Amino acid sequence: MPLFAAIDLGGTKIYTVLGNEKGLVLHRVTIKTLAGSGPEYVINQMVQSVRDVLAVSPYKPEDLDGVGVCAAGFFNWKKRLLVHSPNLSGWCNVDLEKELAGHFGLPVLAENDANAAAFGEARSGAGRGRREMIYITVSTGIGAGLILNGGIYRGASGFAGEAGHMVVKNDGPLCGCGRSGCLETIASGTALARAANEAVSLGRKTYLSELSAGGRKKLTSRDVFTAAEAGDETAKEILAEATHYLGVALVNLVNVMNPEAIVIGGGVAEAGDVLLAPLREAITAKAIPAAASDVVLLKAQLGVEAGVIGMLHLLSEY
Amino acid sequence: MPLFAAIDLGGTKIYTVLGNEKGLVLHRVTIKTLAGSGPEYVINQMVQSVRDVLAVSPYKPEDLDGVGVCAAGFFNWKKRLLVHSPNLSGWCNVDLEKELAGHFGLPVLAENDANAAAFGEARSGAGRGRREMIYITVSTGIGAGLILNGGIYRGASGFAGEAGHMVVKNDGPLCGCGRSGCLETIASGTALARAANEAVSLGRKTYLSELSAGGRKKLTSRDVFTAAEAGDETAKEILAEATHYLGVALVNLVNVMNPEAIVIGGGVAEAGDVLLAPLREAITAKAIPAAASDVVLLKAQLGVEAGVIGMLHLLSEY
Repeated sequence: MPLFAAIDLGGTKIYTVLGNEKGLVLHRVTIKTLAGSGPEYVINQMVQSVRDVLAVSPYKPEDLDGVGVCAAGFFNWKKRLLVHSPNLSGWCNVDLEKELAGHFGLPVLAENDANAAAFGEARSGAGRGRREMIYITVSTGIGAGLILNGGIYRGASGFAGEAGHMVVKNDGPLCGCGRSGCLETIASGTALARAANEAVSLGRKTYLSELSAGGRKKLTSRDVFTAAEAGDETAKEILAEATHYLGVALVNLVNVMNPEAIVIGGGVAEAGDVLLAPLREAITAKAIPAAASDVVLLKAQLGVEAGVIGMLHLLSEY
Repeated sequence: MPLFAAIDLGGTKIYTVLGNEKGLVLHRVTIKTLAGSGPEYVINQMVQSVRDVLAVSPYKPEDLDGVGVCAAGFFNWKKRLLVHSPNLSGWCNVDLEKELAGHFGLPVLAENDANAAAFGEARSGAGRGRREMIYITVSTGIGAGLILNGGIYRGASGFAGEAGHMVVKNDGPLCGCGRSGCLETIASGTALARAANEAVSLGRKTYLSELSAGGRKKLTSRDVFTAAEAGDETAKEILAEATHYLGVALVNLVNVMNPEAIVIGGGVAEAGDVLLAPLREAITAKAIPAAASDVVLLKAQLGVEAGVIGMLHLLSEY
């Protein structure tokens, strides 16, 4: 039975697992990413994390059949390079596969983290059995992975799925990408938190002000959900704005792609039906009826392990 | 060498050709669609059109190896039914393939017209050699066909590509689909003509007023291009609004799909660079740079024959 190591390389943590070809995670370790130390150092950290997870398992290095790694950012699928990662400043055109393969003497696969998570949810999670699935992660940013004809759709070079940068609001907030009105400026966890902190600093009468100890503590997207559940109008408005534009994006994706399922993951999706119910309503009310009736909107099931589970499946189907 | 018949079933015309497996059109006939006479009558018209085109050719019915038909509307690829067609009122769940196969005793393939045109442009037209291509037709309405991994991408049931119903303008004009702000309410030929006629009826000082003989003649989208070329400010504003929102839609598609090429067809695209140049600028300025540098924006090459040429290729690759 094949044994794989899968690494989720984040800006703050490296999460490394051992697992099998069915996507089952057997052992796990987490270490802190020393991102400031540069690519070479972090690649050594990843190698060490694989040694660490082997050490907490009954397996030996020679039992490994392959290694997978996923990371946020633009992974050029044709050139096999991590072109740029928002969480790893200074990384530019890093050949993760070659660097890691040199250490392990094993095949190494690298993939964008949203693609990996989409594949994990499609094979082992909420999208199991669906051939046409869109995975959207709503977290500090917003990303997507497209599962088309049962496999990851990467586009010309591997950059498909930048759903966070769909422009949905004319003259909307300025985005880190330089444009205004991108979905993630309105509906990401960062956007929810920013709107909440702004409301407090503007002196609005809101439960958010209490939660922030009168502005002394920075609010998070979780606080917005807490306040909205408690009936706070300001928090409900912030969420209504976010779900409205997330709804526009999903309706547009349904009309263009005619998916069977949309799976919503990421930290913000943990809020559950308070986020998902208005999105389902938007799709039913506003998408082309033929396409709307084909699609179900589901909460992701694999949480933070979606990426590594996706890498296990990718390694097994390679 | 295989010989195929391909039929483009429109609301006003049935365009039928004989062609070969390389997508080469050998003979053509056009007849008037008597759409008001219902599906059975029109199916007989299609059968007759194939007999007509054989009659103007050196071929006999027994030389035919297959028949293809494309039509505007929602073609359910799984159930093999034309669910609904905007140009053929009263058509509901028509099994075009079965009906035509019964007449010909031959394999028949049916397809949505934008998908067929996309495939035609991908195999014989502007998108030749591109595996990841989005075809957009800007005509009375706006539609799209997606060529992904070299083949037509249909989604769950065949409804993928409804790009005309991407919402791009908050609180935009009401669409025939019941929503507001759909791309085709702003950037289709119909939308351009409507905006021009409105400007004239509002008494705006514009060359469009002259072109419409002071409002006595209804303006078309072509008139908007004519007036804009002559330097008319109103016409230029109408085009600027249309190209702005068409640009938003293309940027969003580039960010989500990472295509190699976008091919613009349909009557409005005949305007050429006055339409294409600002769209190219929008993609360069506003799409994710990595994805923007992968994509070229091209004018379609096959004109009204894109659909039948696509059907010839589909028949040949079937």
